[in-house]
Amino acid sequence: MVANPHLPVLLDLLGVFAAAVAGAFAGLRKGLDLVGILVIAVASSLGGGMIRDALIGATPVAAISDWRYFAVALGATAAVLSVTSRRMSDSKLKSAIEEVRGRAVRLDRIALVADALTLGLFAVSGTLKALNYHLPVFQAALLGTVTATGGGVVRDVLVNEVPMVLQRELYAVPAFVGGLLFALLERHGFVVQGYLAAAGSVVITAAIRLVAVWRDWHAPRPGAVA
Amino acid sequence: MVANPHLPVLLDLLGVFAAAVAGAFAGLRKGLDLVGILVIAVASSLGGGMIRDALIGATPVAAISDWRYFAVALGATAAVLSVTSRRMSDSKLKSAIEEVRGRAVRLDRIALVADALTLGLFAVSGTLKALNYHLPVFQAALLGTVTATGGGVVRDVLVNEVPMVLQRELYAVPAFVGGLLFALLERHGFVVQGYLAAAGSVVITAAIRLVAVWRDWHAPRPGAVA
Amino acid sequence: MVANPHLPVLLDLLGVFAAAVAGAFAGLRKGLDLVGILVIAVASSLGGGMIRDALIGATPVAAISDWRYFAVALGATAAVLSVTSRRMSDSKLKSAIEEVRGRAVRLDRIALVADALTLGLFAVSGTLKALNYHLPVFQAALLGTVTATGGGVVRDVLVNEVPMVLQRELYAVPAFVGGLLFALLERHGFVVQGYLAAAGSVVITAAIRLVAVWRDWHAPRPGAVA
Repeated sequence: MVANPHLPVLLDLLGVFAAAVAGAFAGLRKGLDLVGILVIAVASSLGGGMIRDALIGATPVAAISDWRYFAVALGATAAVLSVTSRRMSDSKLKSAIEEVRGRAVRLDRIALVADALTLGLFAVSGTLKALNYHLPVFQAALLGTVTATGGGVVRDVLVNEVPMVLQRELYAVPAFVGGLLFALLERHGFVVQGYLAAAGSVVITAAIRLVAVWRDWHAPRPGAVA
Repeated sequence: MVANPHLPVLLDLLGVFAAAVAGAFAGLRKGLDLVGILVIAVASSLGGGMIRDALIGATPVAAISDWRYFAVALGATAAVLSVTSRRMSDSKLKSAIEEVRGRAVRLDRIALVADALTLGLFAVSGTLKALNYHLPVFQAALLGTVTATGGGVVRDVLVNEVPMVLQRELYAVPAFVGGLLFALLERHGFVVQGYLAAAGSVVITAAIRLVAVWRDWHAPRPGAVA
Repeated sequence: MVANPHLPVLLDLLGVFAAAVAGAFAGLRKGLDLVGILVIAVASSLGGGMIRDALIGATPVAAISDWRYFAVALGATAAVLSVTSRRMSDSKLKSAIEEVRGRAVRLDRIALVADALTLGLFAVSGTLKALNYHLPVFQAALLGTVTATGGGVVRDVLVNEVPMVLQRELYAVPAFVGGLLFALLERHGFVVQGYLAAAGSVVITAAIRLVAVWRDWHAPRPGAVA
């Protein structure tokens, strides 16, 4: 179905990288120590794929049986920590409070982009794996949505917050749209090989998510329906 | 073992409907928007069955591979939203605060009944699926209890509340009783076909749960034991 | 690979006992009733193994299909409740507040030791099961870490607390060290049979964890890195 056998793993590893970056920033914002940051980055970047593989019976799950998943999560966390700690020492002269405020804004912005990319990458990788397990288009997009939102739910529940997927900006919707788009492209042979369909679907998912945040798009509340 | 092959799916879909109704009300009560309400209704109505299927290895799990599960969850959510928004517009003249209070009481009552029916339906469907996977009576009732309480735990954890299963009124106990009753009826051939045993066990589970809430039954606290 | 076929189940059941003790104390501290305490003890003692078995595809998971798991969890909970309620009646003359304070300190100490033993037992049992499923050394230790920390995460999330695995004292690190040590001992044949390697790895894991708590070891915060 998909021409290139490396595509699923490539999407997964890119998704793990982006998710670990978003997870490490969540840990930094919560004031966790290095081990806590590592735990949350690993759990949230590997969690979505673990749930996906357990649900379709692709066991042992790839996030455990393939060492590159953990290595990428570790590398992404190390990258975040080295960049953020260097910045911190560059700005010794600023007052502590200002610096923390300025950093928080920048961190939130990077974390948001990383989170949107995670959403797109895992939506497509989950959809693709489901197609390879012979699920139909709609169900494949549903598994893609579970994969894409699962890791973020793990992250938010671990730090004891109401998961982003329940909050006002669109989160699950772009994942489902991206997964469905990819599944339809794959099934109808609009692409010579999977890379282009995959890249396009990832970008569209992430773009919808980011525009939803920046323009404060959200679904109406039921009160507004009446 | 069970005469009718449609029984497991029928129980599951009725359980998904009741759970999605309870989940949608939980989302309304939390003031979520339409997408948030849909996410919590879907996650809590499909979550228990997903956990069940992953634990016994019935993969790909039915809640993903069978499109009717998602469709029923979506339909139940839409039904709740259309009923609650119509009511809201009917009562335009009442003061906003009174209306919200009055609605909250009614909503809680409907959500409670839906939740009790969910408990019964999933306790029996989980027990039945476990029997079909050749688990013994006791273990089947245990899986029924996990199925019945799993979705509610997902719902409560998502909205950042201490799960109902830990709180004072009996919750896990009726599920286990109902599952065990059904497993014993099935195993000892007291019924010509599964429907009667299933319906009876569902009703008994839901009744115990509702009576426990209405009469404020609960287990003693350890302090009272000494 | 491992000489004795009883070792995995023995480690698991000892782990379930220790985890149920830790879980029951968590329930007592939260003021739950008897059913709530039982639910949290069962969920946290069986949760880690359920996650492990679902992730490697060892289904139906042992915690459901083998009745001894539930029986041990139930027995451990009953033991905790009988000991704590006897103590409570022995101390009738003390003022209520002092007694509660004194008990809380003692309970925390027992719960801490039980939790450290759980960590060691499940780290080794998870690693061993992964080795038996032909995962390599590093991946086996990773699954051991997931098994060891999974039940505690379930427990902490259920009672709505930020999981211990994210907090300052070392928690995931001893589990990984113990799992890796056991996997290396097994693979390089340093032991005639598995018992000695298992016991040593359990003790070392629990010891690192307890020393970390008692001496307040913890990873640095990122702020201290710069």
